[in-house]
Formats: sequence, structure tokens, C-alpha cells
Amino acid sequence: MITNNATLGEIGQILAASSKTLIFVHQNPDGDAIGSATGLCRALRRMGQEAFVLLEDKVPEYLAFMDTSCCTLDRGCIADPDVCICVDCSGESRFETIADVYNSGKQKLCIDHHENDLGFGDRYYISSETGATAELIFLLLQEMQQEIDKDIAERIFIGISMDTGNFKYSNTTPQTHRIAAELLAKGIDQNSIMVNLYQNVRIQEFEIKNKILANKELFAGGKGAIARVTQAMLDSCGAELGDAETSIDALRDIAGVEIAVVLKEKGDRIKVSFRAKTDGDVGSIAQSMGGGGHKKASGCTLDMSMEEAYAKVKEAVEEALK
Amino acid sequence: MITNNATLGEIGQILAASSKTLIFVHQNPDGDAIGSATGLCRALRRMGQEAFVLLEDKVPEYLAFMDTSCCTLDRGCIADPDVCICVDCSGESRFETIADVYNSGKQKLCIDHHENDLGFGDRYYISSETGATAELIFLLLQEMQQEIDKDIAERIFIGISMDTGNFKYSNTTPQTHRIAAELLAKGIDQNSIMVNLYQNVRIQEFEIKNKILANKELFAGGKGAIARVTQAMLDSCGAELGDAETSIDALRDIAGVEIAVVLKEKGDRIKVSFRAKTDGDVGSIAQSMGGGGHKKASGCTLDMSMEEAYAKVKEAVEEALK
Repeated sequence: MITNNATLGEIGQILAASSKTLIFVHQNPDGDAIGSATGLCRALRRMGQEAFVLLEDKVPEYLAFMDTSCCTLDRGCIADPDVCICVDCSGESRFETIADVYNSGKQKLCIDHHENDLGFGDRYYISSETGATAELIFLLLQEMQQEIDKDIAERIFIGISMDTGNFKYSNTTPQTHRIAAELLAKGIDQNSIMVNLYQNVRIQEFEIKNKILANKELFAGGKGAIARVTQAMLDSCGAELGDAETSIDALRDIAGVEIAVVLKEKGDRIKVSFRAKTDGDVGSIAQSMGGGGHKKASGCTLDMSMEEAYAKVKEAVEEALK
Repeated sequence: MITNNATLGEIGQILAASSKTLIFVHQNPDGDAIGSATGLCRALRRMGQEAFVLLEDKVPEYLAFMDTSCCTLDRGCIADPDVCICVDCSGESRFETIADVYNSGKQKLCIDHHENDLGFGDRYYISSETGATAELIFLLLQEMQQEIDKDIAERIFIGISMDTGNFKYSNTTPQTHRIAAELLAKGIDQNSIMVNLYQNVRIQEFEIKNKILANKELFAGGKGAIARVTQAMLDSCGAELGDAETSIDALRDIAGVEIAVVLKEKGDRIKVSFRAKTDGDVGSIAQSMGGGGHKKASGCTLDMSMEEAYAKVKEAVEEALK
């Protein structure tokens, strides 16, 4: 579905008329946010504009291979911006501490692809059936008749790859592949991008993942898979909670498993992540425990001991799998 | 590079004039072989031909979700075929026990994408820079003006996905993505294909992988990673040697690792697999031990104990990483 009060072409015209442009993304930026924002920033600078990507959080370590010198945490990097545009998010709550800077723009724009996001800013274009915001940046630059050079192509490719699970998720569309074909034709270093994004696993992540998976439990006749990670386990690997994020995919990928769950000790609380493979709806399970999310990926936080949370969650999933 | 004595259009004309067609693939057929062969077979049958895919080995279990009813092990399925075509291999040695049936064809054709494969059959088209044979089948059917229906599109998509690591390997080209875009536009069930291909890991594979990785060793300043799998380890998981195949990718994917090695006990011998990430050349390491392969993936078999093989291989990799 497309929610918009402007076409990409109209947004492009406003951008083209700007001299000083600030680009915003969401907190804890991911590959699509950084790829989209820095790709757009490079194009605007090439047009002679003063342009920056103003971030609330630092670029994550796994994207350190990218040139992100146009990103800054400095609220004062540009005085009196003509245009402020947020990409890959639609809402001040996604970049709260710098929302006032966004609102200082003479014109405020928004380009996004998240479901359920509403209009935001003066002019917005939100396409929830697009795999990645980076696809929209590609289309925007085409509308603006701006060349997609190799550097911009790599940034857009990174965004698309990260947000579509490298063309694996169901948000991958014919358009995604058509754009990927054009990007590869620019001579981008696909192999190096793949190595940097997917063959660069921190040893701490490798080891905590192994520990988590070694203690998994299958239940509900093999349709459920559950595992836990405690602070002691993290400490033994020198790992952080973030290193435990990918384990749940390996549980879901076991043949026969429909719902996978990982419980993570965080201080006194237990963070729970759910994944469904095909028909399961883990959004409603998480909701019933005060959390939220989508049908296939959701989460909640429980104020109880690991043992209690483990039993409670397992029972709920068992019920859902009946 | 393209090695051919006929265009795909000319091969298509010969196929279109046939009434009885047999399709051949290589031993231990993979997703590209089965996808390409059954996709072509379906198109030929739709044209009114008698057509079969004659296999030397059964369809592997991980492709059991596909309708492979046009595949047979029966050498006599068609008497006096007009045309015999082999796809995804170029050489009798790749389907030795049924090569005589191939040679009984009035006309013999070959379509392949493997490097270093030479001409084979009366008319052949070998394109080593194409990611998957399935791409060539797509182009062939276009030349033949045969509609790529949803069923054929799914088969071609499976072939492309399997042989390009779902668009991750460097054999993925702009053409690969352009074809994928057209296939998705046919309304294929991408999600179901992804689940069947990549989210369907045998529990035995899951468990032996965990065991292998738990005992990995990093060396050469973290640039080498080595692990072993013994018969006792396999037995403890009820796993077969084939279940141990994917572990090496997880070792290679550790940040900083350039060369990964897994040693596998097979009877009295040790099978060794090597993978390189970027610059390493594991082909020459394997060659120096009597094996072979490519720069990035190779293997050899050693007649010695696990301990001896482990030490020997580790030393050779250490030397190569200097």
C-alpha cells in the first residue's frame, strides 16, 4: 500500500531546490537506513548542496566498512536547513532527541517503507510493499535524473540486501530484483559487500550462538523450539546481548519447527523473541504477554525469573501450536 | 566465456522438432540440475512431446518438495529417442552408467554453465559466466517462444537460487536478477521455496554442526579456523557425513578468518574440505595434498590418522597464510 501526499518526483523537486539539507533516520540505524541516507546525501552533495546525515546513534560496528563520513551526531552541523528529510522511518518517536532539529527545516519530507506508518512531515511517500527504503531512494534519484554512480549503487545495494535478507524475505518483489540488476551493472563490488555483511561474524557472536543452540529444546512434537541465554553464558563468551540476536533464525530453520523462541536475561527481566516459519502467528502470542510485532517476528518483556518465563512461554506456544 | 557450436535458438529449433526427448543431468543431482531438467521437460511435454528426465541417482531428499514425477531411473522409459540433451553437465563421465542411452539419441545436445567444461554432443552451448544452468533454460524457452508458466518459473527459480547461494555468490550477474524479476512476476510462491530450501535443516545436521563448531580451533592469528568430525560424533547425533557439509561455511564466516578447514573421518581415511573467504587460494593447498578444486573451495583425502591429518593440514594452511 502507498500512503502519500506527494509523488517521488515532487519530493525530488523539493530536494533539488534545496541548498542545505539534513537527512534523518531511525534510532539504532540498520543497513537500509544508513545505505539509503548516505546514498541520498552523496547525490545531494554532488549537486553542490551542503548536506549531512544527522544521527541519534552511532553507525553500528557491522557497517563500519562503509564510508559514513557524511554522518554526524552534531546537531549544529547545518544552520537553518532548507529541507529536512527522514528516510526509513515516519515519526518523531523514532529519532526523539533530534526531532526538534528535523522540525526546524523550512520544508519537512519523509520517505519510508514500514507497514502501518502514517504520513509524517509536509510531504511524504510511504510504500509498505517495497522491500527496502533503498529501493525508493533508487527510484527517487531516477526521478531527479541523478546518475546512480558506483558508490551510490553500493549503498543502495547494501540497504536492499540487509532489509530483504539478501532477497530471501517475502518483501522481495520483481522491482527489488530489477533494481539489483541495474546496481550490479554499475560494477559494484558485490563479493566484498557480501563478505562484509555476511561473512564477518564476531567471534563472541559465533560462540554465544553455539552455546545457545547447544541447549535448545524441541517440544510440541518438534513444532516448537526454545532456548535461553543468561548473563553468565554471555560473560563466558565475552559477548553482549546483541550477539545473541541471530540464534533464533537457526532454531526456526530446523525441519518441522514452526515457532522458535529465545529467552534473554537482561538485568531482572526476561526479553523474549519469537519467530514463526509459515502459518504460525507469533504476533498475537507476544501481544497476549504485553509485547508486539508481526505475524512472523515478535517479542515481549517479562518481569519474572528465567525458569518462570521459560515455562510460561513454552506453554503459550504449545497452546498456539495445537 | 561461451563455448558453443550452436546458439540457444538453434538448440531450441532442434528440440522443437523432436517428438521423443530424453533429458540428462549429472550424478548426485542438485537443485540447478533438477530445476533446469524438469522445467525443460514440462515445457516439452506441454508441446505434446514424449519427454522424461533420465537420472542416474535419485532426487535428493532436500528437493523432495518438488514435483519430480517426470524424473525416472528407467533406462527404457523412451525407445529410440529423437533428441537426448544433457543439462548442467558436459561429459559422459558425469552420468557414466546411462551414457549409452544418451548416445542412442539421433541428435545429442548439451547446455551447461560449468567452468572448464568443453564441447559435448552434436550441438552444445556452455556459458561459464552464467550463474546457473536454469538461467540458460529460461533464455532457451524464450528463444523457443515457449511461455514460462508459474510451474516452470518455480523450477527455474529453484535452480538459480541454489546455484547462486540465493544471489550471494559472485556468479550472480545483472542477468540473474533480471530473470529473477521476471520469475517473481509470474506469481511464484517465493516464500514456500525459501522455507523448503533454507529453513528445513535436518535435526541431525543441526546437532552435528553444533558439535563440530563447539570444538573449532582458530590459529594463525585468527586467520585460520579448523574443526573435525569423527564417526563417534556422527553416531552420537544419528547423523551422516553429508550432514556435516555446511559447518565449514560457519567457520569461514567468522570475522578475520581467511581459510577454514574441516576434517572428516570416513572409514580409515580423512576427507578434508577447505574454504577461502577473499584472497586465499585453497585450490593449491588441496592440490599439494593430492586433491583439487577451486581457489575458494577445495578438498583432498589423506591416508593417515585424524591427529596426523589435523597437524599436517593446519601446518599447510599456516604456511599459506604467512
